[in-house]
Amino acid sequence: MKLLEERILKEGEVRPGGILKVDGFLNHRIDPALSYAMAEEIKRLYGQEDINKILTIESSGIALATMVAWVFGCPLVFVKKSRTKNIAQDVWATEIPSFTHGNTNTAVVSKEYLGSEDRVLLIDDFLATGAALVGLQKLVQMAGGTVVGAAVAIEKEFQGGGNALRAAGMRIESLAKIAAMTDDSIRFAEQ
Amino acid sequence: MKLLEERILKEGEVRPGGILKVDGFLNHRIDPALSYAMAEEIKRLYGQEDINKILTIESSGIALATMVAWVFGCPLVFVKKSRTKNIAQDVWATEIPSFTHGNTNTAVVSKEYLGSEDRVLLIDDFLATGAALVGLQKLVQMAGGTVVGAAVAIEKEFQGGGNALRAAGMRIESLAKIAAMTDDSIRFAEQ
Repeated sequence: MKLLEERILKEGEVRPGGILKVDGFLNHRIDPALSYAMAEEIKRLYGQEDINKILTIESSGIALATMVAWVFGCPLVFVKKSRTKNIAQDVWATEIPSFTHGNTNTAVVSKEYLGSEDRVLLIDDFLATGAALVGLQKLVQMAGGTVVGAAVAIEKEFQGGGNALRAAGMRIESLAKIAAMTDDSIRFAEQ
Repeated sequence: MKLLEERILKEGEVRPGGILKVDGFLNHRIDPALSYAMAEEIKRLYGQEDINKILTIESSGIALATMVAWVFGCPLVFVKKSRTKNIAQDVWATEIPSFTHGNTNTAVVSKEYLGSEDRVLLIDDFLATGAALVGLQKLVQMAGGTVVGAAVAIEKEFQGGGNALRAAGMRIESLAKIAAMTDDSIRFAEQ
């Protein structure tokens, strides 16, 4: 998606350890017009798939997922991160390691809001190792639902998570796919 | 706001300790059409105020705040909760106690995204003790900006935070204001 690539080139900052800082429009300050344009593009890609639920994990995917849910006209459920190991009976739960924060969270979602009738689109801001999408997929599977696919704003292809999940059969659409990053350059993959 | 009050009566559950569970449309599963309608109502209330920034705190206010930013056509900044006491130089930070979780978080926002030129509308899903709004107000004041006011989906008026802040001069608009709750009834305040 040209608009997003241009924005990354203009405002993104590469940090040590393979971190791309896009706090100015995606992770901390949100540009709602860009979020809306991304949601429209995701609708173009997945609009024929009878999706009836949008699923993301708190927090930084929520803004984009809200716009996607609005454009698709279906509910959004955001999975919560819990630090407690005591999981209630009425939730689906799985562990998700965080690449950015170097820790592991328990991801929980109420059984009431995710079920076997759901055809789910997974949404996140970033795709790197793929751990978040794997966790979200597990929760949908526990609930007996169907993962139609995933859409992410930015895929760091060089970290391999996206292609591993594609090889395992998940449809993934990335609005910007970064093939390589150095301190002073960002190269996008051909799409 | 009639639509929201009806939804609360239909789907809200009162839990021990003054907790109102509205996970079905506001805190865990989001109804984007309701969020949009709430954002339109907030625009009607604050549309004349030259607001140029929407501020909320992660995570459960982000969905509503995203819609508000979209309707106002201005950026949203979401303040992050940090568990570390080591605060970087480039952020404004303050402590915010959580009523729901019984702990205290450090709320941080990048200095880059909140400044003296900002006329800020604070957004949150709930207003109970007012601790979150006080924290957000402090961050705006540290940055030298102006808090135009706050808009929340649900105010639990009986917990007093909203009226204390109004007495101190903050404009607060609540889309639903609960005067009293018991295990089997919810009474709204006259608006």
